[in-house]
Amino acid sequence: MSLVRVTQFSVSLDGYATGEGQSLEAPFGHAGHRLMEWFSATRLGHQVHGDDAPARRGVDDALVSSGWDGSVGAEIMGRRKFWPYPGEWTDDWRGWWGEDPPFHTPVFVLTHHPREPMEMEGGTTFHFVDGTPEQVLAQARDAAGGLDVRIGGGPTTVRQFLAAGLVDLLHVAVVPIVLGRGVSLWEGLEGVEADFDIETVHSPTSGVTHLLFQRKGA
Amino acid sequence: MSLVRVTQFSVSLDGYATGEGQSLEAPFGHAGHRLMEWFSATRLGHQVHGDDAPARRGVDDALVSSGWDGSVGAEIMGRRKFWPYPGEWTDDWRGWWGEDPPFHTPVFVLTHHPREPMEMEGGTTFHFVDGTPEQVLAQARDAAGGLDVRIGGGPTTVRQFLAAGLVDLLHVAVVPIVLGRGVSLWEGLEGVEADFDIETVHSPTSGVTHLLFQRKGA
Repeated sequence: MSLVRVTQFSVSLDGYATGEGQSLEAPFGHAGHRLMEWFSATRLGHQVHGDDAPARRGVDDALVSSGWDGSVGAEIMGRRKFWPYPGEWTDDWRGWWGEDPPFHTPVFVLTHHPREPMEMEGGTTFHFVDGTPEQVLAQARDAAGGLDVRIGGGPTTVRQFLAAGLVDLLHVAVVPIVLGRGVSLWEGLEGVEADFDIETVHSPTSGVTHLLFQRKGA
Repeated sequence: MSLVRVTQFSVSLDGYATGEGQSLEAPFGHAGHRLMEWFSATRLGHQVHGDDAPARRGVDDALVSSGWDGSVGAEIMGRRKFWPYPGEWTDDWRGWWGEDPPFHTPVFVLTHHPREPMEMEGGTTFHFVDGTPEQVLAQARDAAGGLDVRIGGGPTTVRQFLAAGLVDLLHVAVVPIVLGRGVSLWEGLEGVEADFDIETVHSPTSGVTHLLFQRKGA
């Protein structure tokens, strides 16, 4: 069965998934790299950052890997994950990930300013679509060919899909830092845990605690 | 060396240590018992709640126990932990804990309305004092006779002592629930983790994740 998944989504102890002041120079705002350090040490993190050193093959790596093993057939992401500024497109920006992004699937970018798809190398095509979470999920499911659909972030997008009850698997990585400000993953989601079974595992190597939410019955 | 400690302090995934709407009937407001269920299953929890059943003797119990093993010689708590309403004292309320409270030490209750001490059974005396965190800590240290001083909560009080750099050990128990609203432990504490080494352990029995903050050099 095709599941809707949020994979390796990092939050601080106070629940922020990104800091304040996002820009092209600071995609996570004042949080800098702190939310993603543990991810950078995994194989996928090394690949994204062009790091040739061997990666630590512990629980962090295994959990990331389970989200990037070919089981995801389409991705949905928020406009601000693709490009940190609101409003009309004003740039020939092609995403953070270079000409061969790590998605290798159709990627549906939520925007109130739809435009032509952008075909990248390696099987990734960015589609710029407007619609409710349910509508865009239906498009993504069609494109996924029976595989899972990833909700790729940012936090506002993940929250929308959680609030709509559309997420089956949610992997939250709690990083032991206090950001103080930014965009919360949890805002407006009071009681969301009631729909899920939760398994937790801590990584002594990175200091991160992983919470694996699985929708009851999924 | 005498340390300043916060023991078994529960917070939700979104960082709230108590809910909204605290009252005598609902000491944790809309959070109900959810933040304290794991604690209730420990030996001390059973004792506080008058539960005679055997307690689970796992990591939850061990961590609670390490805060109540005679190593604490005085306690500081906020007015609203003792009595949930602001302003002048209007009641003969003697705390939540019965005539023999579990503290067995002097307890300094922070208040802008000082009044006479209240002597309980078992060695607990409540002192009602006004002052800065530094001033009240000096009083508590004097009373502790070389033992540790506990900052007992609530969250506003713990935050004050953390912000003042006065806490050596902080045991935070992250309960996997989203409260959505309440009083945050972390508000105003951006970057507080930089002063601490942090050890984390998860309890599969309760589902709670314990973070043990120890001040660098303490």
